[in-house]
Amino acid sequence: MENSFGKLFTITSFGESHGRCVGVTIDGCPAGLPLTREDIQGEVDKRRAGASIASTSRVEADEVEILSGIFNGYTTGAPLCLLVWNRDVDSSEYEKIRFLPRPGHADYTALIKYGGFNDFRGGGRFSGRITATFVMAGAVAKKLLNLIGIEVLAHTIEIGGIKVETKRPDEIRRNVEKNPLRCADLKAAREMARLIERARKEGDSVGGAIEGIALNLPVGLGEPVFDTLEGDLAKALFAIPAVKGIEFGAGFSVAGKRGSENNDPFTIQDDKIVTTTNNAGGILGGISNGMPLVVRVAVKPTPSIAGSQLTVNLENRHSASLEVKGRHDACIVPRAVPVVAAMMAVTLCDFALRAGLLPRVIK
Amino acid sequence: MENSFGKLFTITSFGESHGRCVGVTIDGCPAGLPLTREDIQGEVDKRRAGASIASTSRVEADEVEILSGIFNGYTTGAPLCLLVWNRDVDSSEYEKIRFLPRPGHADYTALIKYGGFNDFRGGGRFSGRITATFVMAGAVAKKLLNLIGIEVLAHTIEIGGIKVETKRPDEIRRNVEKNPLRCADLKAAREMARLIERARKEGDSVGGAIEGIALNLPVGLGEPVFDTLEGDLAKALFAIPAVKGIEFGAGFSVAGKRGSENNDPFTIQDDKIVTTTNNAGGILGGISNGMPLVVRVAVKPTPSIAGSQLTVNLENRHSASLEVKGRHDACIVPRAVPVVAAMMAVTLCDFALRAGLLPRVIK
Amino acid sequence: MENSFGKLFTITSFGESHGRCVGVTIDGCPAGLPLTREDIQGEVDKRRAGASIASTSRVEADEVEILSGIFNGYTTGAPLCLLVWNRDVDSSEYEKIRFLPRPGHADYTALIKYGGFNDFRGGGRFSGRITATFVMAGAVAKKLLNLIGIEVLAHTIEIGGIKVETKRPDEIRRNVEKNPLRCADLKAAREMARLIERARKEGDSVGGAIEGIALNLPVGLGEPVFDTLEGDLAKALFAIPAVKGIEFGAGFSVAGKRGSENNDPFTIQDDKIVTTTNNAGGILGGISNGMPLVVRVAVKPTPSIAGSQLTVNLENRHSASLEVKGRHDACIVPRAVPVVAAMMAVTLCDFALRAGLLPRVIK
Amino acid sequence: MENSFGKLFTITSFGESHGRCVGVTIDGCPAGLPLTREDIQGEVDKRRAGASIASTSRVEADEVEILSGIFNGYTTGAPLCLLVWNRDVDSSEYEKIRFLPRPGHADYTALIKYGGFNDFRGGGRFSGRITATFVMAGAVAKKLLNLIGIEVLAHTIEIGGIKVETKRPDEIRRNVEKNPLRCADLKAAREMARLIERARKEGDSVGGAIEGIALNLPVGLGEPVFDTLEGDLAKALFAIPAVKGIEFGAGFSVAGKRGSENNDPFTIQDDKIVTTTNNAGGILGGISNGMPLVVRVAVKPTPSIAGSQLTVNLENRHSASLEVKGRHDACIVPRAVPVVAAMMAVTLCDFALRAGLLPRVIK
Repeated sequence: MENSFGKLFTITSFGESHGRCVGVTIDGCPAGLPLTREDIQGEVDKRRAGASIASTSRVEADEVEILSGIFNGYTTGAPLCLLVWNRDVDSSEYEKIRFLPRPGHADYTALIKYGGFNDFRGGGRFSGRITATFVMAGAVAKKLLNLIGIEVLAHTIEIGGIKVETKRPDEIRRNVEKNPLRCADLKAAREMARLIERARKEGDSVGGAIEGIALNLPVGLGEPVFDTLEGDLAKALFAIPAVKGIEFGAGFSVAGKRGSENNDPFTIQDDKIVTTTNNAGGILGGISNGMPLVVRVAVKPTPSIAGSQLTVNLENRHSASLEVKGRHDACIVPRAVPVVAAMMAVTLCDFALRAGLLPRVIK
Repeated sequence: MENSFGKLFTITSFGESHGRCVGVTIDGCPAGLPLTREDIQGEVDKRRAGASIASTSRVEADEVEILSGIFNGYTTGAPLCLLVWNRDVDSSEYEKIRFLPRPGHADYTALIKYGGFNDFRGGGRFSGRITATFVMAGAVAKKLLNLIGIEVLAHTIEIGGIKVETKRPDEIRRNVEKNPLRCADLKAAREMARLIERARKEGDSVGGAIEGIALNLPVGLGEPVFDTLEGDLAKALFAIPAVKGIEFGAGFSVAGKRGSENNDPFTIQDDKIVTTTNNAGGILGGISNGMPLVVRVAVKPTPSIAGSQLTVNLENRHSASLEVKGRHDACIVPRAVPVVAAMMAVTLCDFALRAGLLPRVIK
Repeated sequence: MENSFGKLFTITSFGESHGRCVGVTIDGCPAGLPLTREDIQGEVDKRRAGASIASTSRVEADEVEILSGIFNGYTTGAPLCLLVWNRDVDSSEYEKIRFLPRPGHADYTALIKYGGFNDFRGGGRFSGRITATFVMAGAVAKKLLNLIGIEVLAHTIEIGGIKVETKRPDEIRRNVEKNPLRCADLKAAREMARLIERARKEGDSVGGAIEGIALNLPVGLGEPVFDTLEGDLAKALFAIPAVKGIEFGAGFSVAGKRGSENNDPFTIQDDKIVTTTNNAGGILGGISNGMPLVVRVAVKPTPSIAGSQLTVNLENRHSASLEVKGRHDACIVPRAVPVVAAMMAVTLCDFALRAGLLPRVIK
Repeated sequence: MENSFGKLFTITSFGESHGRCVGVTIDGCPAGLPLTREDIQGEVDKRRAGASIASTSRVEADEVEILSGIFNGYTTGAPLCLLVWNRDVDSSEYEKIRFLPRPGHADYTALIKYGGFNDFRGGGRFSGRITATFVMAGAVAKKLLNLIGIEVLAHTIEIGGIKVETKRPDEIRRNVEKNPLRCADLKAAREMARLIERARKEGDSVGGAIEGIALNLPVGLGEPVFDTLEGDLAKALFAIPAVKGIEFGAGFSVAGKRGSENNDPFTIQDDKIVTTTNNAGGILGGISNGMPLVVRVAVKPTPSIAGSQLTVNLENRHSASLEVKGRHDACIVPRAVPVVAAMMAVTLCDFALRAGLLPRVIK
């Protein structure tokens, strides 16, 4: 396992879905950042079930505790340790299906890789609950990015085939927390809600897509040739369970484009060098070019569905049918929105430190 | 800059497009692998211009030299250093456009990030030529993977909107080197060739997409939660210039799918646990599940095009128009095919070492 | 700050002397290791004050809590998080001397480096208390090394100029926990005790030296040229506050030796290749040679002493005299003995994993 | 193997004693540093045989080649690749003793670790010749440190038991290159020369010690708790073959000291906070305190000696006697002096970048 991410702003995630807690250490946070429990709690609350439609019935209070790294209300330069305890845990269903790997889940690969010693309850380390640790780290990263004017937004752009109209950042900012789908297109949001409700009633689930945007980036974030801005963001975002695709700017549509159409011409606007289009999604040569960074993430439908599914009993290697009881989201896309923003913030914060754009001590 | 990749199988790339050479060191290669210059040359030759239609007129001999790490025909456990010299270099055009960043290129971001000290000739570190170093490393990785039966394939699946019919691995293996497009669908290949030729004549370029497949993977490659198989492959593949999107298995189509449709049911086949479909692209929970690993990569159209383009003169910050002379590919997709396979091999090799599936000494 | 150590067995330390807790995450521990709270508590208890003569009057219960990584009594492959809470904290003295850096302490450098935001209470991250996190990690590492027969010993070999007679491993094993000085030479131990007592009465402190020994190492641990066995052990041991020198085998005495005298001749003993002497301390070319690994560590006298000392007031930059009240050890050498063993175990465990000598899953 | 060192200023060493070359890549060097081949050659020349008394008769021209990373006389931000070719190679002696490991050398451990595939000629990767790559990297690091006023000195302080009188930095600077022993105490140097000559005639070798000093360090270099200034310097210095001990400031003598004696009192001098003594060797809490950094390194006698030695034939596992012919130094201490300075410079440069004290682009 590798549970650390980031070269200078390094987060280490720990904990399991049905263990005692999920937590994260953050090493490399500059000293002097004012930081309260509430700063982090606010972000964690967005990820909680119940905060969105279509959630699992497991509802955790998710009260953040800061175990280290803060003194007199400021970060100290020492590692932060943040956690939320697990309380509303019911593992009974999982014992029954221990050897019946759920299709689309990590049950099978985890059991084989860890020789059956993995904590399978609620998916253990592979549960979406682990992303609470990403969100805690992201809350700190966002505060740091805020110091240099960088803003990170994320919003739902597709659920079950229903796509949004393109929205401007101010609309996204204004609308995204107004509806449980975290969708800036309120009309599409209503349709998505109906679609999810229908899927839930049918014991099924739906997938979707999320767009992340970072505004006001300086030119120069990214450390090619291997630590490109795209590459590290993609790595960070693929750590979110259920993500199966990542694209930047024009993304996969470039396959059908010509260079004359895809190249973004440079021009001067308000005495700043900009491009007239943004097919590059704000990144050239793996380095931010000052335009909005635009990334889109494909999220598969929650694999936990109510209906009967075909699987193999790993004890006797016979085919078996499986019905998952548990408590699950019919669509995890809305809950994944703050997680996308969090992992973007963590990655950008690391690059800002690497580029020397964030100080070691904040004054 | 960060020019190293891989935790146990670590490659470090160096060199510039118009410098003396491009090269790579490989640290962590097990001792005892039989390795000749020809093993590496064969792979490098595939990436060469002229090996494909639609290439630049710069044709390098690209003769591989092994500077270290081999003794009596075997790897020694010491770092390999492999390089190809640059010979057919003409930098005259680049001096003229030094302060006129080419749209879609890294010229602007590199100049700002490196304070104007970057070697801009031919794109310097941002040239596609750098991928020759990836291919050299990939040649070694492939030989290692071969020891445990893993095969990596890559092929062109789309150019300028023309898409291939799905092909089986044996067809890909058989057809891909038969045509300069590295396309297993020979009918589509002919259309692609015509499209590229047309674009070239019009001084334009076209994008496309490449599919990479890894066969015969064991269950267990990948080190979640952060070093997922998807995440590290994505990071490796985004190091290839022009890649703007990555997806695994069903990829972005999951956004429109239901869980009942997307989940891959488990079954037994030839006494082996398999899934009846492969929407997961061979990866569950960031770990290989034993099914074919399937990744698709979007490649943008070569930004170097013949026509006049809008840019900004970075000396006087006035708008300017730019005509790029140089020597360029009208479509780099076919030349990127072996590079995709190479970076996949490098990443899988690293994971195989991390999972203890490759020995430190080969006997 | 950099609070992680180890490439495959990676520990991340967090917490402060007077914060809520001190803790550690351990990533990369193989799955399937039976591990209880008691396994770790036993090691932590050795480091506790009161367990040795000459300790501070701060006595913490130091009850270990396991927050993650264990399921049904076995490690799972997921990261462990272990901590002990701080309870017996009295920070009143530290507020008074906040701007009066104590000679020999990190007060001055920490204040400058972290811009005054560091948690200075009790030394914060620079307190000896942080080594409780090393000992917790070491407890896990020792259990892993035990699986492949490796034993790590440490013992006091000098205090305030009083040196021990050389002792055999079985004597060390038998005697070291028999006296509060952790000294295998019981006669020397008595003298040391008297010396420490005298220093304490005079409000002073004494330094000393510790020897660490690892037995039954296989040939092949160490990853030169940079991750040598000496180099990584030295790095690990210099993380222990107060350590100012490290030597292996004949150590500094080699400066006065001839090659004919210092070279260890090879011979066969019990069908095993051994050396007739061990001036190399078990390491040749940065790699274990199968002989006992012998390292010695110089520990400076506790800088906290009762008498008046010269310092500078950092607020007004005037000279000042300082009397440290607080609660301190007159000699920390005995308490550092289990810490030396712990950091040796952590380092060797990492090398064993890197050399492929420990499995990913323990069966 | 692990042939990379440094987190932000990362060097990767490659090459073998009797291979084609020895070289190094340097990643993370800021752009804009003026750098010529001569800058590097000057440092490499110091390490050459013949530049000192008592050297091997193998004399390499050691002409430095810069393969990448320089453009128009300045570093570009891209990785540097520097190498020297091997020319004066005579491997005949080594074939004969392939299975007769030389006492004190890495022959035995390398053969076992790398399964007999290691390039044993001239010690391969374990030859002192590898340190030419350290010196090349050190030459670049020194130029960077020079920008912020940091100076690194090293000099011989002991050979075969003959110790120098303490010398001030200006004497060291003035005297060290005046004699082939790199000893600032010219009287001691003459005695050392006689001692080495005597050892050589007797077919023997002698050890010694080197002191490294870094002047004008800012307060704040070092990233505790694990990347302490002592720890990373020690790791860097143990990469030099033959080093068996490292100590800082008062070093091992602290074991016999009292706190009242060892603590360095703070005072104000020329409006700067200094300590009146420097037992800490310039480091408190793993962080530079602004005083001169002082480190001492024990170097064992060259293991290659002319006389007959006892060893074991690894083919038949019988005892055997060995006479090493080859070409060797009777004392490598003087040649190791520039290597100590080089590895200090590399380490300090990395810490200066990590502390934000060196810019990414030099203006």
